[in-house]
Amino acid sequence: MYDIIAKKRDGGELSCPEIEWFIKNYTCGNIPDYQASALCMAILLNGMNSEETAVLTAAMRDSGDIVDLSFFEGKTVDKHSTGGVGDKTTLIVAPIVASLGAKVAKMSGRGLGHTGGTIDKLESISGFRTTLEPEEFLKQVKDIGIAVIGQSGNLAPADKKLYALRDVTATVDSIPLIASSIMSKKLAAGTDNIVLDVKVGSGAFMKSLDSAKLLANTMVDIGYNCGRRVAAVITNMDVPLGYAIGNALEVKEAIRVLNGDIDNDLASVCIELAANMIALTFNTEIDTARQNVRDEILSGRAYKKFLQWISSQGGDIKVFDNLEAFGKARFSADVVAQNDGYITKMDAECLGRISVMLGGGRASLEDKIDFTAGIILSRKTGDRVEKGDKIATLYSSSVSDFSKVAEVFCSAVSIDADEPEKLPLIYEVVTR
Amino acid sequence: MYDIIAKKRDGGELSCPEIEWFIKNYTCGNIPDYQASALCMAILLNGMNSEETAVLTAAMRDSGDIVDLSFFEGKTVDKHSTGGVGDKTTLIVAPIVASLGAKVAKMSGRGLGHTGGTIDKLESISGFRTTLEPEEFLKQVKDIGIAVIGQSGNLAPADKKLYALRDVTATVDSIPLIASSIMSKKLAAGTDNIVLDVKVGSGAFMKSLDSAKLLANTMVDIGYNCGRRVAAVITNMDVPLGYAIGNALEVKEAIRVLNGDIDNDLASVCIELAANMIALTFNTEIDTARQNVRDEILSGRAYKKFLQWISSQGGDIKVFDNLEAFGKARFSADVVAQNDGYITKMDAECLGRISVMLGGGRASLEDKIDFTAGIILSRKTGDRVEKGDKIATLYSSSVSDFSKVAEVFCSAVSIDADEPEKLPLIYEVVTR
Repeated sequence: MYDIIAKKRDGGELSCPEIEWFIKNYTCGNIPDYQASALCMAILLNGMNSEETAVLTAAMRDSGDIVDLSFFEGKTVDKHSTGGVGDKTTLIVAPIVASLGAKVAKMSGRGLGHTGGTIDKLESISGFRTTLEPEEFLKQVKDIGIAVIGQSGNLAPADKKLYALRDVTATVDSIPLIASSIMSKKLAAGTDNIVLDVKVGSGAFMKSLDSAKLLANTMVDIGYNCGRRVAAVITNMDVPLGYAIGNALEVKEAIRVLNGDIDNDLASVCIELAANMIALTFNTEIDTARQNVRDEILSGRAYKKFLQWISSQGGDIKVFDNLEAFGKARFSADVVAQNDGYITKMDAECLGRISVMLGGGRASLEDKIDFTAGIILSRKTGDRVEKGDKIATLYSSSVSDFSKVAEVFCSAVSIDADEPEKLPLIYEVVTR
Repeated sequence: MYDIIAKKRDGGELSCPEIEWFIKNYTCGNIPDYQASALCMAILLNGMNSEETAVLTAAMRDSGDIVDLSFFEGKTVDKHSTGGVGDKTTLIVAPIVASLGAKVAKMSGRGLGHTGGTIDKLESISGFRTTLEPEEFLKQVKDIGIAVIGQSGNLAPADKKLYALRDVTATVDSIPLIASSIMSKKLAAGTDNIVLDVKVGSGAFMKSLDSAKLLANTMVDIGYNCGRRVAAVITNMDVPLGYAIGNALEVKEAIRVLNGDIDNDLASVCIELAANMIALTFNTEIDTARQNVRDEILSGRAYKKFLQWISSQGGDIKVFDNLEAFGKARFSADVVAQNDGYITKMDAECLGRISVMLGGGRASLEDKIDFTAGIILSRKTGDRVEKGDKIATLYSSSVSDFSKVAEVFCSAVSIDADEPEKLPLIYEVVTR
């Protein structure tokens, strides 16, 4: 291990047996954390080339269970987001592509800190079961083309252990380590086609477009080297995606898109993601795929698939009949603009933390979630507002005094005289 | 701690409170090894400026006991070598400078691996006690100006803990970390004037003159910033210093120098070190100091001081009456040149390991030492030899079959047709 650390410290390229030996022995506890963290810091500062990154990813993938989806003969597809605020895309794209014949056998995470998690959002629907037995999970995918459950099984335990170490040793922020961490889990989850939503901006992990492009290319290369088809869509996360932040609030917003409300940023990103998923899975031209996706929404078939999916996992779909009443919070308060001008900044990360303050997220893993809590934005970055205009409504069933939270909200929003530059919503799609 | 690691990872400068907080909490076990090793790797790769290095050194010095030598009013002097093979300079310079009125209150180490240790060399003299009570130690310095004992007390425990971690995480090889490690111990040991023997060459830790200069300057700066007078003499360690390697063998060689045999490399280095010790301690011009040192040897006063020192610590000085018989090994074997030519290389590190193989050193800390074991070189790098000429004699009382060791010895020595370039013995003296 000493020699491996020294080699990377001196800028050398680690060999395949060296990386495999490290992952194998670190996972089973033969290598102490203090050696692994020194290596992670050396990797962070001296980098890894694409061969090393691919080998590291494969070694972490092989450290635990690997889900076998070969039954579906290449028709399985997954979407993974690098994390953001108000990201409810899975709830929308999964039923769309399933409705178009792709197989979605997906494991999702829970929210922690300012980012939400798909599993929490689904659990805001009463009765919805996020734990299925493996056979039940696969049978549902066979029967209706879609099942989404929480992380289960022992997928990529090496990544789990290494990520926990990186998290406390300031060694998270390394493109090869981030890419191999994400891709090892995705590869172990067994899907043939993977679309990555790489977020860039103040609310995302990647703050610059250059770093987002590098991460996208690194992950697409890893997938290619491991025999999977991968596309990465680089999307803006300077502001939250859509207007809703908070679990039930986001489910409602997703349902509105599936019901045909597609003239907005959230729907645009979802259509682009779903189109790329279809293009990869069925070798469809991307323009055709986009049209198919739009048709699937506007015909109502996507929403029908959504309802079939939710009820198949035990969710009570009758709650959607009166969408206004679904997940309604006990308390709410409007936040208004403090002055005239253009909204030049909405700190997405800060809005995510406000949602946690309202009860809508977790500060630590044990916290219980208030599914009704969150934020509905009325205005977003670039909008013109007059003093006193409503810019958002805060919701909670657990917090009734909103004064402190409203203050934090106002500090997260900048209103200036000059109209801000309009940034693209979708920067580019990386594939190979 | 996370923020401190991240700051150094991103090339930032750590503040005084940050470094002090780290050392304090790492020493008492509040910071786990995996965070400390990540920080060490970030320091190794991103460096530390002179302020940071000085603060780190002072923090490690202050982590344990500090020896108070203020009684001696600025007249205490110490010499520290960065480690080499056949380095018996302490045995020679300590009595010389004590004889000239400086106060030597020195703690020395034991040998491990290919490097020897002064304490082991002294223990080859029967009766010599390397452990003295603190009062006894100080009284001897007061009475005769010199005492040398093994590491005692709890000096710089932070360095001890951090060094053990660096040793297994490939983070030793960093100038600021090496310099602060050495200097924290020297500063805690309390001497006012410090001369550093920075070895450079194949048998030394610093392989290049540039890195040796940088280390020398860094340590001199630290001493200056901490109110001590420090000089660093950069000396060659491509070949062992002198002709003897092994404990009793080195004591005998030291005695010969103290008896006036000063026309050789070993004596030249010792005179330069002792002269710098005198120059620092008494503000003497360096040329005058050199002359004083030579006079002290040639007059026999330095050897008299040596005998006084050894007997004062219980050593049997009668053994030196018949120097041939002192520490004589039971077995010996000559090694001869395999071909004609010039000796172009003698791998000092390898010769150190051969001495260990003969019983003269330790592979692990628990090993017992054969004080009679070692090597006497007959020829050194640059010498012309004919096939069959004796180049060394191997000695041991614990090993009788020398065939394997002789083979290793021959592999450590290169004999070529062309005369090698003659390298300086003393490169330069760094001070400020």
